[in-house]
Amino acid sequence: MKAAIFYQAHQPLVVEEWPTPQPGPGQVLVKVAACGLCHTDLHYIDHGTPTFKKPPLILGHEISGTITARGADVTWREGDRVLLPAVYGCGQCALCRYGRENVCERMVMFGNNVHGGYAEYVIAPAKDIFALPDEIPLVEGAIIADATTTPYHAVVNRGQVKPGDKVVVFGCGGIGLNVVQVAAAVGAQVIAVDIVAQKLAWARQLGAQLALDATSYERIDKEILKLTNGGADVSFEAIGNPVVQGQAFNSLRTGGRFVVVGFADKPTTLNLGKVMYREIEIIGSLGCRAVDYPRVLELVRQGKIKVKELVTARFALDDINTGLDTLRAGHGIRSVITP
Amino acid sequence: MKAAIFYQAHQPLVVEEWPTPQPGPGQVLVKVAACGLCHTDLHYIDHGTPTFKKPPLILGHEISGTITARGADVTWREGDRVLLPAVYGCGQCALCRYGRENVCERMVMFGNNVHGGYAEYVIAPAKDIFALPDEIPLVEGAIIADATTTPYHAVVNRGQVKPGDKVVVFGCGGIGLNVVQVAAAVGAQVIAVDIVAQKLAWARQLGAQLALDATSYERIDKEILKLTNGGADVSFEAIGNPVVQGQAFNSLRTGGRFVVVGFADKPTTLNLGKVMYREIEIIGSLGCRAVDYPRVLELVRQGKIKVKELVTARFALDDINTGLDTLRAGHGIRSVITP
Amino acid sequence: MKAAIFYQAHQPLVVEEWPTPQPGPGQVLVKVAACGLCHTDLHYIDHGTPTFKKPPLILGHEISGTITARGADVTWREGDRVLLPAVYGCGQCALCRYGRENVCERMVMFGNNVHGGYAEYVIAPAKDIFALPDEIPLVEGAIIADATTTPYHAVVNRGQVKPGDKVVVFGCGGIGLNVVQVAAAVGAQVIAVDIVAQKLAWARQLGAQLALDATSYERIDKEILKLTNGGADVSFEAIGNPVVQGQAFNSLRTGGRFVVVGFADKPTTLNLGKVMYREIEIIGSLGCRAVDYPRVLELVRQGKIKVKELVTARFALDDINTGLDTLRAGHGIRSVITP
Amino acid sequence: MKAAIFYQAHQPLVVEEWPTPQPGPGQVLVKVAACGLCHTDLHYIDHGTPTFKKPPLILGHEISGTITARGADVTWREGDRVLLPAVYGCGQCALCRYGRENVCERMVMFGNNVHGGYAEYVIAPAKDIFALPDEIPLVEGAIIADATTTPYHAVVNRGQVKPGDKVVVFGCGGIGLNVVQVAAAVGAQVIAVDIVAQKLAWARQLGAQLALDATSYERIDKEILKLTNGGADVSFEAIGNPVVQGQAFNSLRTGGRFVVVGFADKPTTLNLGKVMYREIEIIGSLGCRAVDYPRVLELVRQGKIKVKELVTARFALDDINTGLDTLRAGHGIRSVITP
Repeated sequence: MKAAIFYQAHQPLVVEEWPTPQPGPGQVLVKVAACGLCHTDLHYIDHGTPTFKKPPLILGHEISGTITARGADVTWREGDRVLLPAVYGCGQCALCRYGRENVCERMVMFGNNVHGGYAEYVIAPAKDIFALPDEIPLVEGAIIADATTTPYHAVVNRGQVKPGDKVVVFGCGGIGLNVVQVAAAVGAQVIAVDIVAQKLAWARQLGAQLALDATSYERIDKEILKLTNGGADVSFEAIGNPVVQGQAFNSLRTGGRFVVVGFADKPTTLNLGKVMYREIEIIGSLGCRAVDYPRVLELVRQGKIKVKELVTARFALDDINTGLDTLRAGHGIRSVITP
Repeated sequence: MKAAIFYQAHQPLVVEEWPTPQPGPGQVLVKVAACGLCHTDLHYIDHGTPTFKKPPLILGHEISGTITARGADVTWREGDRVLLPAVYGCGQCALCRYGRENVCERMVMFGNNVHGGYAEYVIAPAKDIFALPDEIPLVEGAIIADATTTPYHAVVNRGQVKPGDKVVVFGCGGIGLNVVQVAAAVGAQVIAVDIVAQKLAWARQLGAQLALDATSYERIDKEILKLTNGGADVSFEAIGNPVVQGQAFNSLRTGGRFVVVGFADKPTTLNLGKVMYREIEIIGSLGCRAVDYPRVLELVRQGKIKVKELVTARFALDDINTGLDTLRAGHGIRSVITP
Repeated sequence: MKAAIFYQAHQPLVVEEWPTPQPGPGQVLVKVAACGLCHTDLHYIDHGTPTFKKPPLILGHEISGTITARGADVTWREGDRVLLPAVYGCGQCALCRYGRENVCERMVMFGNNVHGGYAEYVIAPAKDIFALPDEIPLVEGAIIADATTTPYHAVVNRGQVKPGDKVVVFGCGGIGLNVVQVAAAVGAQVIAVDIVAQKLAWARQLGAQLALDATSYERIDKEILKLTNGGADVSFEAIGNPVVQGQAFNSLRTGGRFVVVGFADKPTTLNLGKVMYREIEIIGSLGCRAVDYPRVLELVRQGKIKVKELVTARFALDDINTGLDTLRAGHGIRSVITP
Repeated sequence: MKAAIFYQAHQPLVVEEWPTPQPGPGQVLVKVAACGLCHTDLHYIDHGTPTFKKPPLILGHEISGTITARGADVTWREGDRVLLPAVYGCGQCALCRYGRENVCERMVMFGNNVHGGYAEYVIAPAKDIFALPDEIPLVEGAIIADATTTPYHAVVNRGQVKPGDKVVVFGCGGIGLNVVQVAAAVGAQVIAVDIVAQKLAWARQLGAQLALDATSYERIDKEILKLTNGGADVSFEAIGNPVVQGQAFNSLRTGGRFVVVGFADKPTTLNLGKVMYREIEIIGSLGCRAVDYPRVLELVRQGKIKVKELVTARFALDDINTGLDTLRAGHGIRSVITP
């Protein structure tokens, strides 16, 4: 098969022939229809963050496709349209047994611990994949894994956003825009914040009632307090910027909840006296549990979460490095590879 | 009546005659049996933190006593032994209606918004006070309001400590020691941390399974991770020191919960990337809800929460400034005024 | 003013002149724009269920209007468009302090404990009423109090319905149809069940994905188990019929939740062995908390909860007995009086 | 090895030689120190309830012992003292992934789906067993699996009993007495109800503040309402008797929670109107999650949950049918086989 191989950091991926894998017991072989391009890949390629499986490695963790071969003990059938989760848990560690598979101690991530979806085929465990409903297009469905499931978990489980809540989302990139649309889908009143006009326009299209350019306000957090009449019920930071995290924290009402969805590699300075005095909650959110994937698929099927509109570019596997450049430049919402 | 009056910051309280108040409709007059001396008072006296009611003001918010007079529409009887809560809510704001009276938007605190318990008598609203069971001594019962209710709320509602959980408590002053004993009372496995031998000894007496001198370890947080085999389920910081808050944060397992009970007036630097990646929760905790006071009284009645042992000194009202000096010096666990 | 007076059971209401009340301190006088006709009133009139305030009494608890006079200590202004809650709590009992004002021990209900909205004017406590957003029509807005807030509480707080959940609603009358639309609004996959074609059609219009005529299936509960591939996450019974309650109970998956919204005056026979063995939850739901009214108003404002479509008839105050006949006959979804 | 074999219902177990099993990959061979005799076994033997694995079958699901052999990929060591859980989950079904392993769709139970502990040796999966702390005796430790873990789950997770809560427990057999002691261990105020004086005496010894003989009261539920000043926060029924379930239901305060722990094979008649009107919750509870076993072990280690006192008789494997007779007669709290 053809695959884009990651050999080492600071070099382009190499598109070349690679042995097509064969499914073992409990596994399926999936013909990749599409695989989303994600910033996580740039961490490996551009920043040298090590992958768990050493290169050469096939990256890519937002994968849809059809089953073309099956190992023993598999009930899926050839031709079944499926979505692969970005990660899957071990089912045995304490965190899995708590129902927190998304922070499993021995988590496996496609394109990190095992080969991923920047290839014509990929192997997946039969027990961890999901049927893609007919109403969801096969190519655009790929980005459900991660780009929309991560926001679902952040909004529903970690943010515990209730219908009618006042919510503010800082950062309208791939994750932030989906936090906007998931929060809007569950009936929240959403204010989106960014500094790029195009992203703010997208936020409005995806359900934000207000979309504010942070550069237009001396103190965006104080503006939020004013607009929400005392502070948001829940705030999200989807960038990983310590300054913006501080703004998200300061935008809350007493008893409010700040959900940290963006990964920050730099420390943040916070007033924990205020956390105590106003009973604020700061809550981390990572990925999404397998049991919630069917719920996300249902919301996409209903049209309450849009995916078609989010895929703003497609690239052939041969053009994957061009696709990654688009990602680097911050163009579009989400691009996919269609091998 | 005799009362200790706070006239202005940086000056001793003045013990003098003061008009005995009369209860209005829905109010009771309580003859004070004891009133706990609390660090909060030193904020007003030593640091100049303004009180909500302007001086002259009678301070003191940990009050027990007996009812000696009643206004209209009151079902309490003269002679009833009662505990006053440290604060009471308005019952009408959104936070009260959410069941979060302890962060009421118009909260009233004895010895801050209204006159408190450093006097022979104090006025209280009949609807907000609690009968003190016969098994609880009247004098030592005073410190239940705040010294033990605040830890109850922190452990049970905010920390959601489950029986058998691994818990670590940083700081073994008046609040921290009670966090230790409440957590132990509900069946947690408690590690206490401080730097004063006497406080560590008290922590052991109040139920800590281990009591560690932080100065004996290069990295106390790493020691906790080792002792708990991967991190505590819940950690508490009861001092308000940014460095120690960082240690409490770093002592958690994946998915753990850091409860901020100590008030810090300086900012803290935290790695929110870790909050996100390991789904940590940082939770503020303030005071205690009225509906939980009967539960705390029941635990004291059962002997699962000790109060007698915590009252290490008593002072006459005339000696209140000496009592405050003891507090400043950090001697003992809790002192009370017995007017 | 003109008012419809309830003098005694089994007799029509008497429309006559009645003294216009004057607002006391903390109260407002509201000129009634509309008041919903509710089955609860038929309990008093037709079944002789006693009202808390003895007749003569003005019934009616779904009230919208404009403020026309104010007592002391009121910040509302004349002309403000407002929604009255169906009930309000005391703010002082244990249940209010738990944040469960909707089951307050001393709850006050319009048209039951105090005069209600079947009149030109009504008195209400200023602290318990809500501003009606401009986007919501004044007349149809009336039915938000009860007809849509009760379902909000049932779906969100008691049912804890998550976006994408599989939900089944038995009974598509005034409450059931709104359970359907609230559940659909928060992203659930809703199956509605009734035996009247018109009601099933309305259920579909309000968001039910499937609407089933129970008479078409030998065992409607088994049909639900099949359609949901093992059982619903949450089921609602909105009639109060013991047989239908059994069906709602049997339609659940292991670990599912059965929410009892309909009031049954007859006992129900249930297999509690199954409750135990499959960890089912049976959860009562009554009314709605004041703090959730703004959330419901926001969902109506967004158009996610429809009210205009639900008001299928208007009656002048003089014709209130005709309106009640329509209710008795089960015609329409919701009728209002427009005095 | 010697084992007690269940060949068919309505016949005594047959103690005979049986091939000693050998551990496969991921498995351990455990030399049984003790195995608790449980009513569940009588369902198979006396009532003919079918076992999942067809006879001949070794029953017994409360097992402690030491490891004597290990298959591949096992980190336990020979001689390790271990506790086996009564059941273990698949780790892959939706319920396992929700963190509800105790109601796993493909649950495996010792002495039901696989051979159990009425034998000298038993095979167990290495990933699902627990180290028994030195402070817990090997023989009496056996009954932790089920007799104390089931009550832990019922009290902590399903009942959500808070320290200081008012709790009533109906039925003081093996499970009920442990519900009493777990609830008392977490600081609840416990009222126990039974009709046997000896059981009431045990309930008092295990922490019940009051132990009531139901036959002494015309309406035991009304007595509870009076004693609790309005109703219990949480009630438990640990027998499976529809009449007693009704009493447990009627003993609650508004907003209270009735936990169904006893298995009833007959239907119960309940007033769901009251469930609705007073927002009662009826909650099923089955077994215990693996992740909570270490918490239970910790409570036993601390002495807050007693096990030594609960083992009132020991029988050699040869005398197992005599032991089962004791169980049938209702003598003692818990008996164990010590092969």
